[in-house]
Amino acid sequence: MSESTIVFPLFPGVTQLDFTGPLEVLSRLPGARTVLASRAGGELQGSGGVTFAHLTPLAHVTGCLVVCVPGGFGTTEAMLDAEYLRELRRLAAGARYVTSVCTGALLLGAAGLLRGRRAACHWAFRDLLPLFGAEPDPARVVRDGNVITGGGVTAGIDLGLTVLAELAGREFAESVQLALEYAPEPPLDAGRPERASPLVRTQVLQRIEALAPDRRAAAERAAQSLHGA
Amino acid sequence: MSESTIVFPLFPGVTQLDFTGPLEVLSRLPGARTVLASRAGGELQGSGGVTFAHLTPLAHVTGCLVVCVPGGFGTTEAMLDAEYLRELRRLAAGARYVTSVCTGALLLGAAGLLRGRRAACHWAFRDLLPLFGAEPDPARVVRDGNVITGGGVTAGIDLGLTVLAELAGREFAESVQLALEYAPEPPLDAGRPERASPLVRTQVLQRIEALAPDRRAAAERAAQSLHGA
Repeated sequence: MSESTIVFPLFPGVTQLDFTGPLEVLSRLPGARTVLASRAGGELQGSGGVTFAHLTPLAHVTGCLVVCVPGGFGTTEAMLDAEYLRELRRLAAGARYVTSVCTGALLLGAAGLLRGRRAACHWAFRDLLPLFGAEPDPARVVRDGNVITGGGVTAGIDLGLTVLAELAGREFAESVQLALEYAPEPPLDAGRPERASPLVRTQVLQRIEALAPDRRAAAERAAQSLHGA
Repeated sequence: MSESTIVFPLFPGVTQLDFTGPLEVLSRLPGARTVLASRAGGELQGSGGVTFAHLTPLAHVTGCLVVCVPGGFGTTEAMLDAEYLRELRRLAAGARYVTSVCTGALLLGAAGLLRGRRAACHWAFRDLLPLFGAEPDPARVVRDGNVITGGGVTAGIDLGLTVLAELAGREFAESVQLALEYAPEPPLDAGRPERASPLVRTQVLQRIEALAPDRRAAAERAAQSLHGA
């Protein structure tokens, strides 16, 4: 079973679109079994007030083909959750692809899985990657060996298609792209900091400001445990 | 409360990305309350094996600012669910915006909400719209009065940003686009039937073939009840 498992290790305060995007793509891999898991299993709330139920306890996932780690506000706490990080390391050790979306890269980093690797991350938190020995890359999807990381939130769909093409071939991945009608036409043009107006950029950074110091402090502590380990 | 409610009326067999995309966007509207609802409330399974819990019974949603109807395999049955359609009509009557993603347009149609309207729908099922008196439009997001409809699955993100810009202004919507790093870069170019190779198009249509006759039959029955009503 484990060779066909695609596991999404969730945590409280996850940004739901970080994993629901790649889940929609990767669940269409023939023969794949997608598993939503969390440390305790059961229920968990994501962004937008959605409750996900019947999660598998991470310890019950014996192995996987792909591990895909999402991000979100909750990454600050998850970076310091030794058990969660231990499970990530265990799953990554046997996975064909180790992947993340958004600030999920910080969790891969805190688990020691990005040492010496180039990686993508949400643009506003990319500068934390070097704490974990990773080299930040502004690309939307970054591949370094079997580690494939995506940028912020919506990059998860691009990441999902990239991984699907690896696993099932380009033609099959194209058929999933067509089934999902993934021909995006953003009605606005502010999806990257260098495209957004200074005012819009400032607004986002102000909303993030409240959580940024805690997140940096958590990343520094996580990096210390890692280097001490 | 109801003036700030954004409700997603779900049903068994819903494609989760149809609503998790716009949910991620619209839940960031200041003061908004996003509500996932279903006829019975409680739990419900969507595509990819995700279980959504603590859903609100549709009858408990007293009114809304926006109703956003997703699609999915389950639309075939939902089109014939008189109580579900009655709730859609009730919510739409008081909503500022009546919206759908993917084959959710067929549910708006079956509820009698698309008569004489231009509408988008998943490309493979767009031809069913005229049964409900709607004019199919191949655009990704289509606005006709207060009815805003999106194309297949991933169009929900574009739809969400369109509605958000209406509700909160262009600048705020841009700040959400930036927070979600929505600057898509599909790694493949087959997201619309006219871009995909004939082989890829055939593969998708073959996978759909199994459900297409039932869906057409359901749409015809739903249209008959509607015209008889």
